[in-house]
Amino acid sequence: MDYLELLKSLAIPAKTKIVLLVLDGVGGLPREKDGKTELEAAITPHLDALAKESSCGLMDPIAMGITPGSGPSHLALFGYDPLKYQVGRGVLAALGIGFELQTSDVAARINFATVDEQGLVTDRRAGRISTEENERLCDLLKDIRIPGVEIFLRPVKEHRAMVVFRGTNLSGALADTDPQQLGVSPRRVQPLSPESQGTAKIVEEFIAQTRKYLVDQRPANMILMRGFDRYEPLPSLEKLYGLRSAAIALYPMYKGVARLVGMEVIGSATTVGEEFTVLTENFPDYSFFFLHVKQTDSAGEDGNFERKVAVIEEVDRLVPKLRALDPDVIVVTCDHSTPAVLCSHSWHAAPMLLYSKYCRPDFTGAFTELECARGCLGRFPTRKMMALALANALRLTKYGA
Amino acid sequence: MDYLELLKSLAIPAKTKIVLLVLDGVGGLPREKDGKTELEAAITPHLDALAKESSCGLMDPIAMGITPGSGPSHLALFGYDPLKYQVGRGVLAALGIGFELQTSDVAARINFATVDEQGLVTDRRAGRISTEENERLCDLLKDIRIPGVEIFLRPVKEHRAMVVFRGTNLSGALADTDPQQLGVSPRRVQPLSPESQGTAKIVEEFIAQTRKYLVDQRPANMILMRGFDRYEPLPSLEKLYGLRSAAIALYPMYKGVARLVGMEVIGSATTVGEEFTVLTENFPDYSFFFLHVKQTDSAGEDGNFERKVAVIEEVDRLVPKLRALDPDVIVVTCDHSTPAVLCSHSWHAAPMLLYSKYCRPDFTGAFTELECARGCLGRFPTRKMMALALANALRLTKYGA
Repeated sequence: MDYLELLKSLAIPAKTKIVLLVLDGVGGLPREKDGKTELEAAITPHLDALAKESSCGLMDPIAMGITPGSGPSHLALFGYDPLKYQVGRGVLAALGIGFELQTSDVAARINFATVDEQGLVTDRRAGRISTEENERLCDLLKDIRIPGVEIFLRPVKEHRAMVVFRGTNLSGALADTDPQQLGVSPRRVQPLSPESQGTAKIVEEFIAQTRKYLVDQRPANMILMRGFDRYEPLPSLEKLYGLRSAAIALYPMYKGVARLVGMEVIGSATTVGEEFTVLTENFPDYSFFFLHVKQTDSAGEDGNFERKVAVIEEVDRLVPKLRALDPDVIVVTCDHSTPAVLCSHSWHAAPMLLYSKYCRPDFTGAFTELECARGCLGRFPTRKMMALALANALRLTKYGA
Repeated sequence: MDYLELLKSLAIPAKTKIVLLVLDGVGGLPREKDGKTELEAAITPHLDALAKESSCGLMDPIAMGITPGSGPSHLALFGYDPLKYQVGRGVLAALGIGFELQTSDVAARINFATVDEQGLVTDRRAGRISTEENERLCDLLKDIRIPGVEIFLRPVKEHRAMVVFRGTNLSGALADTDPQQLGVSPRRVQPLSPESQGTAKIVEEFIAQTRKYLVDQRPANMILMRGFDRYEPLPSLEKLYGLRSAAIALYPMYKGVARLVGMEVIGSATTVGEEFTVLTENFPDYSFFFLHVKQTDSAGEDGNFERKVAVIEEVDRLVPKLRALDPDVIVVTCDHSTPAVLCSHSWHAAPMLLYSKYCRPDFTGAFTELECARGCLGRFPTRKMMALALANALRLTKYGA
């Protein structure tokens, strides 16, 4: 039996509440200076105290050695097998800006870019144009028409936009046109299956038409597309686990992945502190909360060790606010590691703690990678964490007699 | 390849002996008073000494977060994938009283119960009637006949009985008639697949006939049925691993699951001490011994922390008797945790130790949950334990050249 099917078959109603606090990319690596990771360097009395009362462990987001993107690593946190449920970045981007995708829509991400007279890419982000310029460009492109399909082009942020194609028999099996390097032409739209040839032609036509409108624009005179995907909603957390679930996040991407699994995106926080306030205000109304902190990951990607430490310490000061709510289960972890020394997502296992009245507290003395490695939960795939959270919330009945 | 197939293909003959000592439900949770689990509170010099000479670990009976019933968790201990080999409680109950099931028999558990004049259940256990009264009622019902099927009704204990239907094309895909609550009618027999409609009619007729005999009885004037299942024997331990295996258990349920995998149930012990005597007396005659201690689980289910501690200490005093036999491999573990603070089976991983001349002793200093969490075997599914036991008994040959 599939693990998710098993959980679904065992889920029972309860009044208990679960809070999943995701410090995106918080797992790190030792810096040269003193051999400390970001979590080890941060002063985190509240997280450490929580770890001491918790069962701890290390989680592999996808599988050992695999560095995940944000989509699959979050699906794993919510209990979905990320190798089975594959969701393209285009779909996540569309969901993230609140676009109402319909089943079988094909979505893709767009970068406004700069090409030279020979059509070679000179800037993949068009000098990171402002969001206002992005909006102006999307407006400029609003009259593009292709027979048989509806086209929805939307600005996202800075140089990033997204497009949705709606029609019959569309396929998301298309390769990126973004060449991921400078000095070369954008790639042609490449069908990755026989069924996607028609869609490839539609997208070629779309790019050709955008080029006509953009040719005289500066610096954004071209689009690069990636993350093509057809939208198929996932079974919701409500349907699978009986959880009425809410997401609190600052960035579109994470709101998107939350909507994909049926969460309600709540509040309009713009800081981590406000995110915790949204949690507090809405605490009575939901049984599952996904609170996403983005800044740990951003700092890691920027290679800014000190800023990542500062964000961790900021979250630590907010932990008492979380504990004051007295949730039945608290999970603190990350979707993946983003060590500042690597300036990118990494394959390193994610430290995690699970607190509940019925957890088995272990020898873990602090919330760090190595302390969690000593935890009684051992090392396990991220996608199994949800079962532990549900079990500790007394939301799963017995398997077999 | 399936794990069990792999083991079967590698099993080789040997004269070595394995003892699997199952302290049912021994895994626990900290009590309020001093933060100690049952195993931590118990004084267990012999188990602790054994742990120091052993490789230790934590096992997930079914999967992380899943609370198992006794059937699947024992199948996992014997190496069977409990999600693949699903055995209903009716079959286990029949095997447990020594009833000789034939392939394709359909078995179910029966509770004698009390209903009022409106037919609403007022006591699901008929005041826990005595076993003698149970036997009298089963005798009263012995003349029930349904064309085309043989019916075997047998008392089990107190209010519990079991029935076996033998015929052609019978199916076990029937829902329980036990409504699991008071003040409502027993459920009608519900077929769970198209193939089980015929069997559902037979069971309806059976219940109708019992009702005629029981209507004037007090307090047991009705039967409730659950755990319908069709019997298909599993590949035996002899066939899979080449083990001549014996089970020593006090309770029918565990004798039943042992018979299901081809073990011989030996002795007629009525106490834990007598179980160890049966082990000693029969030690020359078998290569695998499953010694089941029930009382740890019963105490846990009763929420009686102190009694569970006392049982653990009683077993500890018997460990020298086991070691005097000098088995090649000793495994001490549980089928699942039954923390006294939860009064029920739980999802928490099972502590385990494996002793052999060729095990790799680790840092584990005592037989407790947290010490086992530090063990060199890490955390793994219970169903893989049997391979370790066989390997340590030098009963598996090399895989590949």
